[in-house]
Amino acid sequence: MSRSPRPLHLNAFLMSVGHHEASWRLPESDPYASWNVRHFQELARIAERGKLDSVFFADSPVLQGDPGRRPAGRLEPTVLLTALAAVTERIGLIATASTSYNEPYNLARRFASVDHVSGGRAGWNIVTTAGADAARNFGLDDVPPHRDRYERATEFLEVALKLWDSWADDAVVADKAAGVHADAAKVRRIDHRGRFFRVDGPLNVPRSPQGYPLLVQAGSSEDGKEFAARYAEAVFTAQQTLAEAQAFYGDLKKRAAALGRDPEGIKILPGIVPVIGDTEAEARELDAELERLISPEYAKRQLAERFGLHPDALRLDEPLPADLPAEEQIEGAKSRYTLIVDLARRENLTVRQLIGRLGGGRGHRTFAGTPDQVADTIGEWFHSGAADGFNIMPAVLPSGLTAFVDKVVPILQERGLFRTEYEGTTLRDHYGLPRPANSLEVTAA
Amino acid sequence: MSRSPRPLHLNAFLMSVGHHEASWRLPESDPYASWNVRHFQELARIAERGKLDSVFFADSPVLQGDPGRRPAGRLEPTVLLTALAAVTERIGLIATASTSYNEPYNLARRFASVDHVSGGRAGWNIVTTAGADAARNFGLDDVPPHRDRYERATEFLEVALKLWDSWADDAVVADKAAGVHADAAKVRRIDHRGRFFRVDGPLNVPRSPQGYPLLVQAGSSEDGKEFAARYAEAVFTAQQTLAEAQAFYGDLKKRAAALGRDPEGIKILPGIVPVIGDTEAEARELDAELERLISPEYAKRQLAERFGLHPDALRLDEPLPADLPAEEQIEGAKSRYTLIVDLARRENLTVRQLIGRLGGGRGHRTFAGTPDQVADTIGEWFHSGAADGFNIMPAVLPSGLTAFVDKVVPILQERGLFRTEYEGTTLRDHYGLPRPANSLEVTAA
Repeated sequence: MSRSPRPLHLNAFLMSVGHHEASWRLPESDPYASWNVRHFQELARIAERGKLDSVFFADSPVLQGDPGRRPAGRLEPTVLLTALAAVTERIGLIATASTSYNEPYNLARRFASVDHVSGGRAGWNIVTTAGADAARNFGLDDVPPHRDRYERATEFLEVALKLWDSWADDAVVADKAAGVHADAAKVRRIDHRGRFFRVDGPLNVPRSPQGYPLLVQAGSSEDGKEFAARYAEAVFTAQQTLAEAQAFYGDLKKRAAALGRDPEGIKILPGIVPVIGDTEAEARELDAELERLISPEYAKRQLAERFGLHPDALRLDEPLPADLPAEEQIEGAKSRYTLIVDLARRENLTVRQLIGRLGGGRGHRTFAGTPDQVADTIGEWFHSGAADGFNIMPAVLPSGLTAFVDKVVPILQERGLFRTEYEGTTLRDHYGLPRPANSLEVTAA
Repeated sequence: MSRSPRPLHLNAFLMSVGHHEASWRLPESDPYASWNVRHFQELARIAERGKLDSVFFADSPVLQGDPGRRPAGRLEPTVLLTALAAVTERIGLIATASTSYNEPYNLARRFASVDHVSGGRAGWNIVTTAGADAARNFGLDDVPPHRDRYERATEFLEVALKLWDSWADDAVVADKAAGVHADAAKVRRIDHRGRFFRVDGPLNVPRSPQGYPLLVQAGSSEDGKEFAARYAEAVFTAQQTLAEAQAFYGDLKKRAAALGRDPEGIKILPGIVPVIGDTEAEARELDAELERLISPEYAKRQLAERFGLHPDALRLDEPLPADLPAEEQIEGAKSRYTLIVDLARRENLTVRQLIGRLGGGRGHRTFAGTPDQVADTIGEWFHSGAADGFNIMPAVLPSGLTAFVDKVVPILQERGLFRTEYEGTTLRDHYGLPRPANSLEVTAA
């Protein structure tokens, strides 16, 4: 039960009643759970029981997918994180929010508030938001170019960082006798003037328990990797093979080091979709049941949309067309596009087989196996320079999370790979990261 | 204990450790409570114990006031409401959010999410946000003109209403066997094209328990009253005298009726700041103690800012200057300005006396008295065409709320004026308002 010298990190990436597009059709699933806060409160409690570092919710400000085919829509994530904070004590709470469709003052304040309310457990997955459909909810005709979105994201984050530091940690003195509540010199305007934003500040929330939320990033394009190397403290990534994962891991750590950062300060967590059975046969049967419940025509439309193709350009029982666009021509999720094309070509999959492997158009590594096999894979990747931890994406919820927490986590604990108790109280404590100093700190007058 | 045929409504307007600017300096007050969610959770539980209709939090996306002089800054209100929803069962949860500094898609989604998470207890106080300082957190040099702000607010609300209705109430069918989650024809784009906004929709959250949050309004300018008459279901207002309150009440109900609305569908709640003592002497002593703790120079600066004057233009022991600007020249909170000037002139107050009456620059009706006296005033205003209920603004928190709930509410209940149990579960239930029909409802195919 001794602690590994290098701790493993586990995040539960939670979505509706599971990441598999057909999970809602299983007899066990509550098809209304997507908007039921009690469902997510139960999931957060299960993850906390397993001593996981954090739970995570992806998001986009648009109705994604076909609501006819699977549960669509989501509770707004900062609201959801707050509802989870109220019923948990230790687990970290991470959500996606868009730099393209928010104002930095508002979003910085919301995450600071979640950090206050949760006692220092907030994390922000910073995304630029792909897709013209989201743009059309915000007065635009199309999504801004990839490069512009990342330039805005960079300036957005710089503004947010200044706002989070606009109160010194010791600004509030609360001297009742003198009638001095805060040292006003330690609450400072930021007077930001940039290409995208002009913001005076200060923020109207004092510096939060963690200073600011854990900064998470999940894009693996060139722009995304540069952004992650500069700012991210945790990175979620989709990697299909150990070799690709090692290359990504090494590259990102090197980029961070080249920017003067400690490579240990950026934790890399590939996603895995474990389909867990007590026996291999049981795991394969669950996997096959999910695949049978996929609507192939719907999944084909989703895949065609990702490729910028008409659905008729794809045929279910043939391979992908030879003349797909190059990654440079994709304005959406660039690296995921390439990953999916590579997977299909490498394994010579038909469209139908590819859909089955993706569980309906995604791209994380799916495998069916026993708890020991899942723990083996985690250990293998963790010890071979491919991962600091994993983004666990249960295909079915809550059962897939329960299986991971009750069957895989104990094995990881027995092997000395994973914590048996939380050691700290904040999300950064769990990831072994220091509380950031205040960049605008002034010395006392 | 019989119910009044016309129910009285009570909202607790909660701010920091009390509405009085000096409340934080009392020995009983926790000067760090403003950012401590447990403080507000305790207050919400006290209000729920008193069977109040709702709690309310004002807001502006800017650091208001001098952080040196009183607790400044606030947790973001939709986050705060969610944290309160988690620890209460029945009480309504209302917060202010700005139509000038938000995007309708994001804000409509957040309030729909709070309504889902709370089981139908969300309310939105719709404000346009006065003040150049807020504008300067959002890329503007100055606050947009009053009229433009209200035009944007009107279009903002129209967009939000369409988004909230973009899912039919019966859109989700959850047919697992057929693989049909929602009837896609009942999840509709809104394709809004207006002066301020272009929004395709649909919202990415299904229609919420109340359909949409209770719509609250608090501006009493001409533009504000027109907006309230068209849209508001509850109105918070500052009224210093019974005659003024009656005039406002009659005017707003008439405006609503002229627009074809049932005047009973708009509940009017003047604010009162009761300073409660078991005896009149005790109440006066608390009032005097708070007044002694005011910093008159700070309060003078606040007042001068509201008047658009240099602080030196006001002298503490003289009346207000004769040549103040007319209401039309004020781009901020117009009606509050006039109320304060009228109060000072009517009672011939010096600046120092005015500051004492305002408790530091506000304008709601403050009075010190016993529980019976507070109940008498409530009954008098309620029965004389001045109010459908009251916005209770405790000068000190939690003690002022506790005193109101434990001492005034039982008197109101004994007099048959106020409920002894909640009868419904949603915020609209408490206010006796129907759940709004879906304006975009389609008949089944």
